[in-house]
Amino acid sequence: MLVHTIAEVREQIKKWKKEGLTVGLVPTMGALHAGHKSLIDKSVEKCDRTVVSVFVNPIQFCPGEDLDKYPRTLDEDNKLCEDSGVDIVFAPSPKEMYGEGHILSNDFLTYVIPPYFYVDKLCGKSRVGHFDGVCTVVNKLFNIVQPDFAFFGQKDAQQLIIIRKMVKDLNIPVEIIPCPIVREDSGLALSSRNKYLSAEEKEYALALSKILFNIKACYDKGVTDVRALTETAYAYLNNRHQLEYLEFRDENNLEEKTTADDNTRVFIAVKIGTVRLIDNISLH
Amino acid sequence: MLVHTIAEVREQIKKWKKEGLTVGLVPTMGALHAGHKSLIDKSVEKCDRTVVSVFVNPIQFCPGEDLDKYPRTLDEDNKLCEDSGVDIVFAPSPKEMYGEGHILSNDFLTYVIPPYFYVDKLCGKSRVGHFDGVCTVVNKLFNIVQPDFAFFGQKDAQQLIIIRKMVKDLNIPVEIIPCPIVREDSGLALSSRNKYLSAEEKEYALALSKILFNIKACYDKGVTDVRALTETAYAYLNNRHQLEYLEFRDENNLEEKTTADDNTRVFIAVKIGTVRLIDNISLH
Repeated sequence: MLVHTIAEVREQIKKWKKEGLTVGLVPTMGALHAGHKSLIDKSVEKCDRTVVSVFVNPIQFCPGEDLDKYPRTLDEDNKLCEDSGVDIVFAPSPKEMYGEGHILSNDFLTYVIPPYFYVDKLCGKSRVGHFDGVCTVVNKLFNIVQPDFAFFGQKDAQQLIIIRKMVKDLNIPVEIIPCPIVREDSGLALSSRNKYLSAEEKEYALALSKILFNIKACYDKGVTDVRALTETAYAYLNNRHQLEYLEFRDENNLEEKTTADDNTRVFIAVKIGTVRLIDNISLH
Repeated sequence: MLVHTIAEVREQIKKWKKEGLTVGLVPTMGALHAGHKSLIDKSVEKCDRTVVSVFVNPIQFCPGEDLDKYPRTLDEDNKLCEDSGVDIVFAPSPKEMYGEGHILSNDFLTYVIPPYFYVDKLCGKSRVGHFDGVCTVVNKLFNIVQPDFAFFGQKDAQQLIIIRKMVKDLNIPVEIIPCPIVREDSGLALSSRNKYLSAEEKEYALALSKILFNIKACYDKGVTDVRALTETAYAYLNNRHQLEYLEFRDENNLEEKTTADDNTRVFIAVKIGTVRLIDNISLH
């Protein structure tokens, strides 16, 4: 069932809660691919009812980012959800979510702000305000859908860590279920932004996963010095890659590691042409 | 029932929700007086079950404010609640609410931040960060108690307006019930901070309500010019009063008024000695 208003969602959720049914939420920006599908399948399996939200959230895009050209494929998204046993596809308009007028600023809108320590690094460094927008919209979706479980992909690992921190800090009664990254056979992590890549750029994009897999292999062989592990990356990079970051951090609190251990996650962001790609791997 | 842990509250709430009972929340910092009692009575009357939270929230006090000396009277508070038919008095420790360590900063804690337009004026001007702390703790309490209704006094009118804005912006499934200011026969608005006043200072404190009542009387007689209405205040002030603000604003969105109308609320803050007092009145 495709619904566009908050009121319709609330009404349906209320009925389900009365019947004692559990509800799973998969928040997405649409352009669904096999990565999203894996989250949806997990929710459908675990919960009595599943809601997928499809909302390209304007307040998590920074100036100059791809808000306008972000892929919007609601018909296909809805079809994929129906075929997967989703009960509600919630696709609100920006107006439905934020009202009208000049309110998309912290002058006139209440924001949920993650801690600076979690956002002053990795993607937060170049995408200023991004995670404020993410936390605010996820908080709204949680309040609208009141799910028992919410499913997030580990592809956006920093986002997942920040959402978990938000849930803990604000005592939100939702259990967050992390889901593993889904990859093409080539190793490329699935992303809605892969659509922006030319065939040639897609080849270059393989560097991200190759770097991460190689670091993991080195770690498994006993290399734990982060500087040494970092240096293994350069063999995979050329002048078509603009490396934004390659960092080793604690996968719960994002503290920096100088010696890798089983709690370490390796994060990478690379720009290829105009397309910014991210990937990560746990050393566990 | 006096409980100190979030887990105990959640467990009880879960049972009530299963039985289909409605829950009212009265968030307080304790030192309960007849003003709080009127909120509690309203909740007990309206809801199947009532929770009163008693928590002196450290993150809403600014440096130099009265966090340490703020009155703490849990035994009396609990007695008043029991006598009033309250079902749960929730009195958590700061550690229970915020965990341990250096987390009471936006470096390490997720905050809910009201819009600048709502906090850069009135009490927000002198109490920087105060409403961030208020919104964050109220959001936490809403997530812990999951009330159907929450009761707030109009004494803290700016707070009430900001909470309503937060509920709207974040789609929080709680209905906010505003409750009128309770006053002594003298006109003095009840406040836990009145305890700080000497007998002499208490006399001076009457200026606040006298100014507001007189402005309302002038408005009722047809005076709408805000400058003229403001000037009526000075007759009540002497060198023992440090006037912080006297402002006429829209009672829904806090926009400034130059001509008073039925949507106008008059806000006043005065410092007497070291005690800062606030009051307000609707011209409706």
